[in-house]
Amino acid sequence: MRKRITREDATLFLVHAQSTVDRVTTWLTDLMSRGAITEAVARISRLRLKDQAEVVSHMNPELQVRLLEHLSPDNLAEILGELEPAEAVELCMSMIPRQLASTLDQSRPEVAADILRGLPVAVSKTALENMADASEVIPLLDYRDDQAGGLMTPHLIALRDRMTVSQAVSFVRRWAGELRPEEVSYMFVVDSNGMLRGGISLSQLVLAHPHQLISLLMETDIISVLADTDQEQCARLMERYGIQRLPVVDEDEHLVGVLTLEDMIDVVESEATEDMYRMIGVDRSESAHGPIVRSIRNRLPWLCVNLGTAILAGLIITLFQSTLGRAVALAAFLPVIAGQGGIAGTQTLTLIVRSLALGDLGTTATKRILMKEAVLGLVHGLILGLLVACIVMVWMGGNEYLAIVVGVAMMANMIVAGISGVVVPLGLRAIRIDPALASAVAVTTITDVVGFLIYLGLATLAIRLIVVG
Amino acid sequence: MRKRITREDATLFLVHAQSTVDRVTTWLTDLMSRGAITEAVARISRLRLKDQAEVVSHMNPELQVRLLEHLSPDNLAEILGELEPAEAVELCMSMIPRQLASTLDQSRPEVAADILRGLPVAVSKTALENMADASEVIPLLDYRDDQAGGLMTPHLIALRDRMTVSQAVSFVRRWAGELRPEEVSYMFVVDSNGMLRGGISLSQLVLAHPHQLISLLMETDIISVLADTDQEQCARLMERYGIQRLPVVDEDEHLVGVLTLEDMIDVVESEATEDMYRMIGVDRSESAHGPIVRSIRNRLPWLCVNLGTAILAGLIITLFQSTLGRAVALAAFLPVIAGQGGIAGTQTLTLIVRSLALGDLGTTATKRILMKEAVLGLVHGLILGLLVACIVMVWMGGNEYLAIVVGVAMMANMIVAGISGVVVPLGLRAIRIDPALASAVAVTTITDVVGFLIYLGLATLAIRLIVVG
Repeated sequence: MRKRITREDATLFLVHAQSTVDRVTTWLTDLMSRGAITEAVARISRLRLKDQAEVVSHMNPELQVRLLEHLSPDNLAEILGELEPAEAVELCMSMIPRQLASTLDQSRPEVAADILRGLPVAVSKTALENMADASEVIPLLDYRDDQAGGLMTPHLIALRDRMTVSQAVSFVRRWAGELRPEEVSYMFVVDSNGMLRGGISLSQLVLAHPHQLISLLMETDIISVLADTDQEQCARLMERYGIQRLPVVDEDEHLVGVLTLEDMIDVVESEATEDMYRMIGVDRSESAHGPIVRSIRNRLPWLCVNLGTAILAGLIITLFQSTLGRAVALAAFLPVIAGQGGIAGTQTLTLIVRSLALGDLGTTATKRILMKEAVLGLVHGLILGLLVACIVMVWMGGNEYLAIVVGVAMMANMIVAGISGVVVPLGLRAIRIDPALASAVAVTTITDVVGFLIYLGLATLAIRLIVVG
Repeated sequence: MRKRITREDATLFLVHAQSTVDRVTTWLTDLMSRGAITEAVARISRLRLKDQAEVVSHMNPELQVRLLEHLSPDNLAEILGELEPAEAVELCMSMIPRQLASTLDQSRPEVAADILRGLPVAVSKTALENMADASEVIPLLDYRDDQAGGLMTPHLIALRDRMTVSQAVSFVRRWAGELRPEEVSYMFVVDSNGMLRGGISLSQLVLAHPHQLISLLMETDIISVLADTDQEQCARLMERYGIQRLPVVDEDEHLVGVLTLEDMIDVVESEATEDMYRMIGVDRSESAHGPIVRSIRNRLPWLCVNLGTAILAGLIITLFQSTLGRAVALAAFLPVIAGQGGIAGTQTLTLIVRSLALGDLGTTATKRILMKEAVLGLVHGLILGLLVACIVMVWMGGNEYLAIVVGVAMMANMIVAGISGVVVPLGLRAIRIDPALASAVAVTTITDVVGFLIYLGLATLAIRLIVVG
C-alpha cells in the first residue's frame, strides 16, 4: 500500500511510525515472554527497515538477546545500518561474539567501522579476528567519524577509462545488483593504476554510442577530497557545487571511497546541533532521553564556569555597595541593564556563529560586520535608553538624574553587546577554537560586568543628584 | 584540472573560491568601466556556475545592468538557479522586462516560481504575461516556498506502467538529455490517468529483461506527499526512510512533481537556522551582511519585549527594597542567582527545542523528560548551592545565614530552570506555536522573576539573622 501525507498527516505519520514502534515493541515483548519467538520475528520482518531497527533497539535487553538469536546476520546488518551509531553499538554489545562477527561481515563497511570504533577495544579486537573478511573495514578504522574517511563508503564500482560504453554497461549489469540505484547513477572512472580520472553518469552511458570510449565521454573536471578532510568542509563543497557523489582519494590519487548527499544531511544536522549546544555549554553527544549522569558530567562544568563569571558580576556590585546603600532604588535596574545587554549580545552572537558555520562570512567582511553591529547597538541603545528613561521618570516619581543614568548605561551596554557579540566568536576562531564554544557564557559575562560598571559608575558620580531627585 | 582538498585546503578552497569571486569582481569592474564588456563576459563564462552567480550578484548595480545585456537568457537562467532566492530577485530587478521574461522561460520552473513570488506584484504580473510558456510555473505559485509544492520540481519523466523495459529505456534515451543524471536515476511510474503507481531505478531497467513489463518490476510501496506538506515534514520523511526522490501528488493522486535530497539539505539547514534565531527573537531572513534597517525592524521588537520582562524582574527587587536597604550585600548575589538560572534554563531549553525539531521527542516521552530535567536541576542545584554557600562564607566573613539563603535560592532556581526549560517549549507546541519562538526570552524571565522572589523572599524572612551575622 502507498502512504500519502498532508501537512497534518506527515506529523501524524511520523508520530504514528513512532507509536507503531512503541505498540509493536510492547506487543512483541509479551508475545516473546509467552515464548512465541518465531511469530515475533515474522511480525518484525513485515515492518519497514527503519521501524524494525527502532523496535529491536527499544526492547529490554534480555528479550533483545533472545530475539537476536532468531534474526539472520544480513537482516541484523540491515538493522544496524538504520540505527544511530550509539544505538548500534549498544545492540552489538548484546550479541554473542560469533554472531557479532558474522553480522559485521554482512554490514556495509562504513557501518561496521562506526560500530567497531564504538565498541570496547577488547570486543572490537575479537570481532575483527572472527570476521571472515575485515579487509574492507580495517582501513576505515584509521579515520575519525567526522572525517571523509570515516563517512565514506568504499563500496563503489569504478569504470576503467579504457572501457567502451558497451563494456561499461555490461560491467554495470554484472555489479548493479549488489548496489543501491544512487550508487550506480554516477560512477567514477580510474586508470590502470586505480587513480581517479573522471566521472560519468549511468544516463550518459545509456545515451551514448556503444563503441565510444569512456575516457572521451567522462567529466574530467571533478572535485575530490582526501580521506582526512573534515566532514563539514565536504558538506560545504557538495552544497556549493551541487555535487551528488564526492569521490575520496588517498595521497596518491587512488580512489578509496565516495561520500553521498545522504551522509551530508546527517552532517549538516549534527553540525547545526553542535553549534546550538556549544554556545551554552552542552555537548553534542547529549540527548533529551540520555542518561542523567552523562547530562551532569556534560553541563555541570559550564555551570561552574558561569558561576565564576556571575560572581565576578557580583563583585562589581559590591564595589558600589555604598552607592547602592544610599539609593537602593538603583538595584531595581541591575537586571534591566544586564538582561538587555545579555539578550542583544546573544542575538548578534547567534547570527555570527551561524553565519560562520554556513560559510557566509568571508575573511574580508569582518570589519564591516563589526561596524554594523556597533551601529545597530547604538541605534537600539538610543531607542531603548530613551524608553527606559521615560519608564524611570514615571516609576521613580520624576527622578530625572536616575533616568539619565539608567538610559545612558542602557545605551552604552547595547553597544558593548553588539561589539562583544562579534568579537567573541571571531576571536575564538582566530585562535583556532570553535567560535560557538561557550560563547554565550562569555558574551553575557561581558555585558553583565561592563553593564554594571557603567551603570553603577555613573550612579556613583551622580549619586548626590539622584538621592536629592 | 581537478582539485583535491585536504582538511586545511578545503577551507582554503572555499575561502579561495570566495576571494576569487572578490578578485574577479573587482577585476571585471574596471575591465567593464574601460568598456571591454565582451572580454568580461568571456572571463565570467570560464568560472564555475556557482562562482559566476556570485560574481554577477556582487557587482555594483549599473555595471550589473550593462553586463546582463550581454549574457544569454539561458546563461542567466543557470546563474539565477545558483543564487539565493533573495539575491536572484535582486538581480531580476535590474533586468528589462523582455529579458526577465525570456530568462524566466529558460529557468527551471521552481526557480522561476521562487523569483516571481519575491518580485513586486506588478513586475511579476508583466513578467508572467511576457513569458512564452508560464504554464509550468503558474501552478507552483499557489504554494508557499516552505511547502512541498514550492520546493518540488515539476521537471520529471514519468514512465507508463504499461511500458516494457525496452520501451522505457528508449523513452529515457529520448528525454535523458534534458535532465540531470540524478533525475533519471530513479523514475516514477504512472497509469493512463497520470496517477502515481510506483517507482523504478534506471539501474533496474538496465538490469532487467527488455520484454518485461514495468508494472511488474516497479517498487509499489512508495511514500508520496501532497503539495501543501510542510518542507520540514518532507525532510524528516526522506531522512527516516532513506528516500532519494520524494514524489509529490495532488488530491487525485496525480504525480505533480518531485522533491530531491539536494533540496532537503537547504531545508534542514534553514530550519536549524530558524530555530537558533527564533529562540532569541531574530528572524530567519536576517543575514550578517543584510541591511541595518531590516536588522532593527527584526530585533528591536523582541528587545522591547525583553525590556518589559526585565522591568518585571526589577519590580520584584523594588518589592524588597527595605530588605536590600538593611543588607546591601544581598545585591551582590542578584546576578548570580539570575545568571545561573538563566544559563541552566537555556541549556535545557535548547536541548528540548532541538530534539523537537529533529523529531526525537515522542508524545509519550514528555513526562519522563520533565522528571529528568527537574531531577537534574535538583542535583545541579545541590552542588552549585553548596558551592556558592561556601563562597559566601569566605567572602562575606562567615555570614552563615546569608550563605544558607543564597544556597537555597540557588538550588530552588536551578529546579525552576530545569522545569521551565521543558514546559515553555512543550507548552508553545501544545498551543500550536513554534516551540523555538522567543522561548529563551520567556525562560530567562521566569528564572529571573522566580529566582529573585525566592532569594529576596528568604532574605526578608531571615533578615534579622543576616544583618546580625
